[in-house]
Amino acid sequence: MRDLGLLFSELPCVTAAVFTRNAVKGAPLIVTREAVGSGDVRAVVVNSGNANAATGAQGVEDANAMQNLASEALGINPGDVAVASTGVIGTRLPIGKILAGIRAAANELGSDDAGFAESILTTDTRVKEAMARVEVGGRTVTIGGTAKGSGMIHPNMGTMLAFMTTDASVEKGCLDETLRRATDRTFNRVTVDGDTSPSDMALLMANGASGNEPIALDSPDYPIFAEAVEDVATTLAREIARDGEGASRLVEVVVGGAADEDGAVALAKSVVGSNLVKAAVFGEDANWGRVFTAMGYSGVVFDPGRVEIWFGPVKVFSDGEPVEHEEAEANATLSGDEVRITARLGEGEASATVWGCDLSYDYVRINGSYRT
Amino acid sequence: MRDLGLLFSELPCVTAAVFTRNAVKGAPLIVTREAVGSGDVRAVVVNSGNANAATGAQGVEDANAMQNLASEALGINPGDVAVASTGVIGTRLPIGKILAGIRAAANELGSDDAGFAESILTTDTRVKEAMARVEVGGRTVTIGGTAKGSGMIHPNMGTMLAFMTTDASVEKGCLDETLRRATDRTFNRVTVDGDTSPSDMALLMANGASGNEPIALDSPDYPIFAEAVEDVATTLAREIARDGEGASRLVEVVVGGAADEDGAVALAKSVVGSNLVKAAVFGEDANWGRVFTAMGYSGVVFDPGRVEIWFGPVKVFSDGEPVEHEEAEANATLSGDEVRITARLGEGEASATVWGCDLSYDYVRINGSYRT
Repeated sequence: MRDLGLLFSELPCVTAAVFTRNAVKGAPLIVTREAVGSGDVRAVVVNSGNANAATGAQGVEDANAMQNLASEALGINPGDVAVASTGVIGTRLPIGKILAGIRAAANELGSDDAGFAESILTTDTRVKEAMARVEVGGRTVTIGGTAKGSGMIHPNMGTMLAFMTTDASVEKGCLDETLRRATDRTFNRVTVDGDTSPSDMALLMANGASGNEPIALDSPDYPIFAEAVEDVATTLAREIARDGEGASRLVEVVVGGAADEDGAVALAKSVVGSNLVKAAVFGEDANWGRVFTAMGYSGVVFDPGRVEIWFGPVKVFSDGEPVEHEEAEANATLSGDEVRITARLGEGEASATVWGCDLSYDYVRINGSYRT
Repeated sequence: MRDLGLLFSELPCVTAAVFTRNAVKGAPLIVTREAVGSGDVRAVVVNSGNANAATGAQGVEDANAMQNLASEALGINPGDVAVASTGVIGTRLPIGKILAGIRAAANELGSDDAGFAESILTTDTRVKEAMARVEVGGRTVTIGGTAKGSGMIHPNMGTMLAFMTTDASVEKGCLDETLRRATDRTFNRVTVDGDTSPSDMALLMANGASGNEPIALDSPDYPIFAEAVEDVATTLAREIARDGEGASRLVEVVVGGAADEDGAVALAKSVVGSNLVKAAVFGEDANWGRVFTAMGYSGVVFDPGRVEIWFGPVKVFSDGEPVEHEEAEANATLSGDEVRITARLGEGEASATVWGCDLSYDYVRINGSYRT
């Protein structure tokens, strides 16, 4: 499997980026944050296998070297190149190998579109891509995206890595706001194992090739564009959860009837992140007591006596009491590729959806032997 | 294995109790909180196998019935009896079986001291007991304790269940403060899976049989007594972590050099609770990058460039850079029954120790098939 990828726009781009909130930040994030803050980023160079995180001053030098090598290969300024790395933490980047990889990837640009999506994978089992196409100001614009993410997934910013591009013309402030909002509602609502990576990064590059009037926050078509970006991000977020390390199924948790959206998110994340809920889903056991318990320790204030819980369409709990139901029927809702657990409070009208996966023997196997 | 236990003091007791902070509270906690708040609790009735939680009004009736049955069997007032239950959530208590169990346990009182510690176990693999003996006001006082806890362990109050007794005479306010402080520094520093149970409860009963002058917060010997209680609680807390569901080893995480104790606790808990750190310990992989990363997402503010990390005595990270070391030597520190991971910040002088366990295939097996 290839482990170095280049993404390049021949036209200059407006670019928005969001980064991990982990206090520990990988060296590539330091370099990329500066590039996005000051420049006109229109290329991304990514390697997988080594995160170049917790590598000190040497790590920043290496990330800068990656940026320089890519800019030379592409004939643009170093400040036009974003850098990202994913993989093992705390080991120095094999910079010679990276250089060779950049040259090979630059030669192949345009000839192999699947290459980039593949190059960013680590323990992922499949490529994650999404696309949306909408009319904006009379022009058709396309939004594409690719992501990686399988373990150390509890994004508090981007997700491991997500790259989205569009041929729409978009004002910088509008693009920033669009990415921030989409990230909050998609990547930041995924958890695989509760571990927030120091390498999380999401990028959205817009090169304006479609020729539309630049989109601003007050453009009539802005909501259409923002929704299309969110659709792409949602697809990628779901794919990341589905491909969680060792996962056998995607788990979607919906909380409704909440007093506010933040509370709904916190409740839903507490459920989808619970090891006990995840192990129960793996075992196809509709153990609603664990769902209710995880809501209870979310930190959100609610009346337990007004809670309702469903596994798929099967109602199992209502008004603080178990609902008579066929256990086999509830368990059967956990046997497919996608599982939905729904809870309703009696507090208000806010709701939220989050995504995760089950906890399997394979998660333990993968992470008990990742480095060796 | 027996599944009902009675603890009884023939002398009246001063009793302190702490309960889960989960918003969902098991029915026994509602009944016991009232008894401890208003009465003179000197008996505890506990069943394992069924938590009597998320059982609505019926659950409270059943917990009251347990209390009544035990008080009749012991010839004391219902308000003198604390009730606790642990096991499956959301299923009605088999009250007929409980009644028979209480009668049998009452008949055996005094004849079989190991019975109580055994009766409270669920997925635990062994009995957890601790004892301390100190001189207070010229009298020898003894503090004994027993606990259960194996899964759904991330206590935010007691731990699943911990019962401590002493023959010391202690003033009520002093006993409350002693238990609260010991709980904060012991049971509340254990995590097995990050799931806070709705049944957590810790009780400390003091019947004064040793004849000492009642201990108050300003008694000269109070620190000796408080330390002895904390010793008993620490032993129980460590035993709970060591016997975590599926665990093959006890993990102790020490964070030093922190600005304050709360920060040190938050950092240490973030490390000991990380699924990735736990899986690495299971795989005997001294993956310090995961330790550093977990510190980074703890929410505590610190300078990553001043962090030092050790596995056992092997230093692996210093001043924001990896330290050259023999990987095999670091990995070997993970091969025993007890593992210690130490981190030092350069922020201040506060420190904290917390306990957890590794994440194994058996955790998934146990929790993928607990109910069935």
